This record gives sequence, C-alpha cells and structure tokens, in this order.
Amino acid sequence: MLATTIHGPGDIRVEEVPDPTIKRPTDAIVKVVAGCVCGSDLWPYRGENPIQAGATIGHECIGVVEEVGADVTDFKSGDFVIVPFCHCDNTCAHCRAGVQSACVNLGMTSSGQGEFARVGQADGSLVATDGVPDPELLPSLLALTDVMPTGWHAAVSAGVTEGGSVVVVGDGAVGLCGVLAASVMGAETIIAMSRHEDRQQLASAFGATHVVAARGREGAAAVKEITGGVGADAVLECVGTDQSMSTAFAVARPGATVGFVGVPHGVELPVGKMFQKNVGLRGGIAPVRRYLPELLDLVLQGRIDPGRVFDVTMPLAEAPEAYRAMDERRAIKVLLQP
Amino acid sequence: MLATTIHGPGDIRVEEVPDPTIKRPTDAIVKVVAGCVCGSDLWPYRGENPIQAGATIGHECIGVVEEVGADVTDFKSGDFVIVPFCHCDNTCAHCRAGVQSACVNLGMTSSGQGEFARVGQADGSLVATDGVPDPELLPSLLALTDVMPTGWHAAVSAGVTEGGSVVVVGDGAVGLCGVLAASVMGAETIIAMSRHEDRQQLASAFGATHVVAARGREGAAAVKEITGGVGADAVLECVGTDQSMSTAFAVARPGATVGFVGVPHGVELPVGKMFQKNVGLRGGIAPVRRYLPELLDLVLQGRIDPGRVFDVTMPLAEAPEAYRAMDERRAIKVLLQP
Repeated sequence: MLATTIHGPGDIRVEEVPDPTIKRPTDAIVKVVAGCVCGSDLWPYRGENPIQAGATIGHECIGVVEEVGADVTDFKSGDFVIVPFCHCDNTCAHCRAGVQSACVNLGMTSSGQGEFARVGQADGSLVATDGVPDPELLPSLLALTDVMPTGWHAAVSAGVTEGGSVVVVGDGAVGLCGVLAASVMGAETIIAMSRHEDRQQLASAFGATHVVAARGREGAAAVKEITGGVGADAVLECVGTDQSMSTAFAVARPGATVGFVGVPHGVELPVGKMFQKNVGLRGGIAPVRRYLPELLDLVLQGRIDPGRVFDVTMPLAEAPEAYRAMDERRAIKVLLQP
Repeated sequence: MLATTIHGPGDIRVEEVPDPTIKRPTDAIVKVVAGCVCGSDLWPYRGENPIQAGATIGHECIGVVEEVGADVTDFKSGDFVIVPFCHCDNTCAHCRAGVQSACVNLGMTSSGQGEFARVGQADGSLVATDGVPDPELLPSLLALTDVMPTGWHAAVSAGVTEGGSVVVVGDGAVGLCGVLAASVMGAETIIAMSRHEDRQQLASAFGATHVVAARGREGAAAVKEITGGVGADAVLECVGTDQSMSTAFAVARPGATVGFVGVPHGVELPVGKMFQKNVGLRGGIAPVRRYLPELLDLVLQGRIDPGRVFDVTMPLAEAPEAYRAMDERRAIKVLLQP
C-alpha cells in the first residue's frame, strides 16, 4: 500500500510499504477514508523526537473495516468506523476507571497517513457509525480520533465548570478543540491565547469570548484584567513546551487546575509556585475511547463541528507538503485523502 | 512575654521578647493556652530553610482572646478561639473560592510557641468554641490549627472517595491526620507507609487498613499487590522531599491524583510520567479556615480525635527539648504549655 513514512527530520515521503495484516485475533484492518497530520507529528519532523528511519507515521484515521481477526465479534468488514489513536480493550481496570490511554493492552495507530491501518483490540477500540456517514461529516468524525477528545480531556482534567472562566494556551487544532469543549461545558469566559488571525477567528467561532495575543507576563496581565484581577478558574495547556506551561500557571487563579494535553518537551514544573498557589496539574494522553460516544452524539446532533480545524485538504501523495504547511503554520491541520 | 526563638540551626531558646500588640484594627491578641512544634519547624531547625536569628517561631496555637482591634466585631476579650496558622479575611475572591491560604490579606501566626500571639484579620481567621472547652479536648482543638486541616486538604486534593483506595506517604503528624481524613471520608483501603512502630500503631488506630514499611520500589510493589495490581485511587504526599514525591507517583494508579501538602524541598516533578499515566497533582498550603467549622464539629461529636498525634506534652520552657525529641523522632508531635 501507499503510506507516509519519515526518514529523518524534515524528510517525509509517500511510498510503497507492506500492507498491514492481522497479527493478533483481536486486530482489525481498516481501509482509510481520511487521515491527517497531528501537531505531535511535528516533533519528530522537527528532529525533536527520535526517528526510526523509514517507519510509517500518522495515528489519526477513519475508514471502513476491511478484515477482522478471529476474536473480533462486534465489527465486520464494511463497517464505517472511527479509530481512536490509542487502542484499548475497554475492559481492564484502567479502562473501567476511564483511563483507556493506560489500558494494559494499549496500542496505537501507526499508518493513519496511509491506505490501510491495523487496529489492535478492535472490539474495545472502535466505534462504528450508523451506516456510511454524510461526506460533509467526515472532517468532524476524523477530529474525533484525537484532537477533539484531546481538547475535551484538557477541559475535563482542568475541571471546567458551567459559568466559570477558562484560558486555553495554544491555538493549534487541539487548543481550538479545547475552546470548543469549554464552550459546550458552559464556561462563561473563554480566553484563547493566540497570535494568528485565522486561528483567532476559528477560536471565536468555537466560542472564545476573548482573544489574547500577548504572551508571557504581558499575556498573563491581560488575562488577569479580563478575570477581574483573579485569574482563570481552569487552564487548558495544549502545547507542551516549558514556556506554554509557565504561561498556564501564570494565568491560573489560586485553587485552579491546569489541564495539560500537550506532550511535554523540556518542561520543568514550578512545584513551589503550585504549592504556594494551590494550583494543580492533571491530564496526559487522552482516553479517546472514553469520550467518543458522547462526542459522536454531539457531532451527529450538529452541536459541535470540530472538523473546522481542517483548513486544508490534500491527496495522500502530498503528505510532504502537508507537513511543510503545518510546520510553517500556513495550515492549522491538513486532512489527507488516500 | 516568654516565647520560643530560633537563633541558628539547632539553636532554639525560650526567652523574653516584646509582647505582640495590635498593629492593625483587624488584629487580635490571643493568650496562648497551648502551642506546639510543627514538622515544618524542623526545616529551619535543620538548617534547610533560611533563619532570621532571634525571630520567634511557632505557628500553631489555641487560646483566649486578650484584646481586639477597633475593627474586630465578631470576637471579644475572653473568647476561647482556634487560630488557623494562616490568617485570612475570609471574604476575598480567593477565600470565597475556598483557597483561604491564598487570601489577599494572608498572614501567619508567628509566636505560637509563646505566651501571646497576634492574629491578623481576626474576624475572618478565628473560630470560637462555645465556652471554655473541656481540657481533654485541647489537643484535638490544637490539631485543628494546622495538622488536621492539612491532612484533610491532602485527602480533598487527592480526591479521596468512599470505597476507594488511598496511600498516605509520610507518617508524621500530618500523614497520620491524612489517614484519619481518608477514614472519615469512607475510603475502603488505607495504606500507611511507615517504618516507625509507634506511628504505625496510631495510623491503625486512625483507620489505616494496611501498613507498608518498605520504601522505594519495594514499597511501591507492596502497594501494587495490596491494590490488586492496579495502584491507589488517591495518594496523600505528606513529606515534601523528592523521594517521598517519587514514591507517591510510583504507587498511584493511572488517573489518580496525588494530593500534596508537604512543603516541597528539592522536588523535581516527573512530568513525563504524570502525562503518560494521567496522574495529577493538587494541593499546597491548606486553607485551614475553610475546613475548620466542619472539623470542629467532628471533634465535638467525638468522631475524630486528631489530638492523639501529641504523644508528648512539655512546659513551654522545654521547647528546645521538644525540637530535639521531634528531630530525633522520639516524639511524633510535642504540645507546649505556656
């Protein structure tokens, strides 16, 4: 099959690789209808994560079940499915506690930017739609494989409440989905920290009541003013750098929680300040499968349209350009069509 | 008045110092009936915190109101009061949000190991008992000024739930009060990590269902076995060292929260592991005033007896020996009588 591979920093190719096959009886193979590039794919692209030269890349996709292993009972060839980027059995103690991202049988989609993908623990991982969805819904369904549940997880972890104030640090697709999550959860004040006009506009469309373009101390001062000198009740950290984490703690009111979903890179947590201000930190890899049924309902009811984070669509063959566009911030998120 | 002062590491004296006076119209002066030494007093005693030579020390006391400032309306001379170690107006935005330890008018008792103490924001800070309490109740009332609300805050911050499993790291007075808090909150499994027999016994009396004496990997393995291979639902970190924090994260199940109340010294938080396991951290300086009414009720109803952490009582003049006894772990916590 054709799939996107990474050979080194900045070296993305679309090439022939062996088709994925059923390796365990709990696996399924999905023919990809739409995949995409994740902000976290940019870490290895920029050389900030180790790279296994020639490995396939891409962990987000939706598609049609092609084949299932002998132990898969809930899905069959032809089902249209949403594939959570982290696979889980949805029955172990951690899954039952709502932390499917720590499943004892955890797996991950590894060729979502390709023609086919293997899904482990198919019965636990997959969620099927009722028939083949309207093509217009595909972007929003694709967003349910990672970015939307991840933004949602930030909001859940931060304890967003109805009527409360929320700051979202990070205006990537996840941050924008965090704005959308906070809006659905009824936050009254939603402050998006963003310096890019296209993202500011989408943040506002998703429910942001304020946009703060300033960063660092100046940004924190702007948030403090908007929140009547108090700081935010909940903060969503959707980047993963030391600077973004530092901003997140700076804008949090005493007693608030920072919900973090950006994979931490070089982050040193300000434990003394956290103690002094009673500001907590919760979050991590989103338990996508936990949130999927609820978020799918919201999409089908037309209450959320997270697919709007895809501002560019390209054929799979143009994956290298998709990475360049996202790396250079010319695109928020690129949808790839095999 | 006579008060305990610190002149350098290991150098505790009881000597004449000026009586505290009303400095602001919101102040009150309290004649100390009982004070005590806090585990956190041992940080400067051991030279691990900066010391202002000759300064009074001691932030926990109960007593009788001697004098009030012109703006104090809710208390009068003769009232028997519990003095939260952190003073607060109990009306600002942070107090209203339940974070009285971040009050905009925050203060702290500074001569609790003396004959008199000044209390700032008296109307917001103090809680009076109904008449003069039974002498037998004094230790438990004294415990309400810091250790019991601090252990309680660890349990609240960690999200202890009825029927859940809890690990308490640290067998000092705060850790033991954490065990008591978890027990009152209905935790089913309460694992006290303790190596000292007297403390193990008190932990059991306070509701610990298991005691783990091992530390590090071995201790974490013991907790994992007790919790059926899963780890604890909630962890109370009541020490503040890098080792204790590391243990706390090691015993937490995915999705758990570590509630931390030990003043952090040299702690580096394992942000990558927190992200990977979705283990949160919440806590800090306990908002004592927030919990006081509820905890006072529990003491008066005879449902908790946190005063049992005082295993030694000494006259104020013996404060230097009180510090030695606690430093050498010959005493859990020493009550001082002026």
